[in-house]
Amino acid sequence: MARWLVILAGGRGERFWPLSRMMHPKQFLTLMGEHSMIRSTRDRVRPLIDPDHTFVVTGFDYVSKVKANLPDVPASHILGEPVGRNTAPSIAWAAAQIQQLDPSGTMLVLPSDHMIQQEKTFRRLASRAMEMCEEQGGFYTFGIVPTHAETGYGYIEPDGPTSVDGILTVRRFIEKPPLEVAEAMMQTGQHLWNSGMFVFGVNELMDSVARYLPELFRGLVALVAEPDQLEVIFPELPQVSIDHGIMEHAEEVFVLPADIGWDDVGTFAALARHLPRNDEQNAAKGHAIFVESQNVTAISEGPVVSFIGVQNLLVVATRDAVLILSPERSQDVRKVVQALKEAQHDHLL
Amino acid sequence: MARWLVILAGGRGERFWPLSRMMHPKQFLTLMGEHSMIRSTRDRVRPLIDPDHTFVVTGFDYVSKVKANLPDVPASHILGEPVGRNTAPSIAWAAAQIQQLDPSGTMLVLPSDHMIQQEKTFRRLASRAMEMCEEQGGFYTFGIVPTHAETGYGYIEPDGPTSVDGILTVRRFIEKPPLEVAEAMMQTGQHLWNSGMFVFGVNELMDSVARYLPELFRGLVALVAEPDQLEVIFPELPQVSIDHGIMEHAEEVFVLPADIGWDDVGTFAALARHLPRNDEQNAAKGHAIFVESQNVTAISEGPVVSFIGVQNLLVVATRDAVLILSPERSQDVRKVVQALKEAQHDHLL
Repeated sequence: MARWLVILAGGRGERFWPLSRMMHPKQFLTLMGEHSMIRSTRDRVRPLIDPDHTFVVTGFDYVSKVKANLPDVPASHILGEPVGRNTAPSIAWAAAQIQQLDPSGTMLVLPSDHMIQQEKTFRRLASRAMEMCEEQGGFYTFGIVPTHAETGYGYIEPDGPTSVDGILTVRRFIEKPPLEVAEAMMQTGQHLWNSGMFVFGVNELMDSVARYLPELFRGLVALVAEPDQLEVIFPELPQVSIDHGIMEHAEEVFVLPADIGWDDVGTFAALARHLPRNDEQNAAKGHAIFVESQNVTAISEGPVVSFIGVQNLLVVATRDAVLILSPERSQDVRKVVQALKEAQHDHLL
Repeated sequence: MARWLVILAGGRGERFWPLSRMMHPKQFLTLMGEHSMIRSTRDRVRPLIDPDHTFVVTGFDYVSKVKANLPDVPASHILGEPVGRNTAPSIAWAAAQIQQLDPSGTMLVLPSDHMIQQEKTFRRLASRAMEMCEEQGGFYTFGIVPTHAETGYGYIEPDGPTSVDGILTVRRFIEKPPLEVAEAMMQTGQHLWNSGMFVFGVNELMDSVARYLPELFRGLVALVAEPDQLEVIFPELPQVSIDHGIMEHAEEVFVLPADIGWDDVGTFAALARHLPRNDEQNAAKGHAIFVESQNVTAISEGPVVSFIGVQNLLVVATRDAVLILSPERSQDVRKVVQALKEAQHDHLL
């Protein structure tokens, strides 16, 4: 009856091109601080869970990168998916592995590429959720107090304002909403952002998979019996998120409102918000020179980036690719990636 | 009594940073067409003057680059200055060398980094000037018909509208003027831009140097007598332009109005004007991707440069430096070079 960490590291990170590449997605970038996002994710909960109680689910191509980033995680705990099938298969695969070692264990599931500024507060909440889970079972989520009507996140609607020690029952999950709906939810002051972080018991999760996603369950049983059939079995698993496939159906679902300085850093604009700015509102990660320019963000992996007489730009520079965009257009980086794919410039992807 | 070409290739080209570097200034860049500026300069007059009748005056550090760019120019004709002392010492040094081979020769002097679109017209004018010079002596300049009130060039004021076969007598040279003066000259319709291209007889030039710049003359006599004292003698030569030191004083000075598609391509904005544009007024030299952007110019030596939702930018990208500027600020590139010097980032200069 131990505690286990499951890190989800399957992301392709196209929104961070050209920093991220097909073979070097966002979770391996050092966007903040000194370490890669995945390493920071693992280090953040070191006081709660030992490295050898960690599983990582990632793309098959990224297994060696995960090993290099997390050298104290056992190699057998790094699960490489031949294809991405969304979060339910990833989490359930890790759960099926842990179930063989520790069926009554408790899992903390974390995406590998989020920022959390208040780490102590987060650890306190994660501890609380794991304790509750161990005491009474159930599914636990962490709900971020929204700061704006974001349309890029899912939302959680708690079942009224009553809470036990700050833990609320979840009434429903709401998928990424249109702007009007997001604004209405902001008005209520009740809704929380779904951070994609979870706690549940291993056995209870597998029981729910068997009940709500029987096809996935059968696939995992087959995979545990014949691990060498991974490349045949995994691509046949149903493609479904843990939210949609399990959490929306499960009966005992709770949310811990979490004011932890969370950001999924989903775009360059999000990253830019966390950089310190000078008097002219310019910010640089890497070497930059600003001449009579304002509200400019430079993110460089090497080249010196110089500006003369420009405003309101976000620039990302690597040795073989430079991206220059209006800050409010950082959701559209994929359009460039798409153009490069269509032009078959695979060496730049 | 032959014809000689003298190419002035001493420029440091800071206004083209980061394309140009201290060891790779503008005259060695391929800004237009397929060849370097200096190679295009030499090729442009090939029908008029043989390569082995060519002298090049350049910085000492650039001698090997000149050789690589102009392999059919005799190595002994490539003169490397230990320091730059402006155009009068450069031209007079070449003239002193030619005088030893062919004292009654005629020199065509060309900067190494200008663009001329109407090459046949230019060759016809250059031939005409050399013929006139051979017949009756005198100093000849090529005056560009101005297209706008440019403050970055010197001007030539002809002596009235009368001309012999399109050749006018020069009344005076005017240094780079303030904007009001430039606008007033545009109004007259008489003034011409001083292109920095000249024709004169070798002996006549050296006589004028002796008369108007005696200190320079004595230095050159010493240099011819003791070529191995170059590094001692050359830095002591007076720093003066051929316009100011000779042309303004000489008695028989003529100008050939030249409508030859000339541009000194002195800035990135000037270069941008010569690139073809798409429907959204975007232009690229090198690999660029434009997404919902307008009036953007990308000049890349390698990196792919991508734009999303931006307007009115000029971007220059190399593997180790990226420059992003407002097009009307391309005169200010030196500010970035200066900042790099002050920060001692010499590897980027």
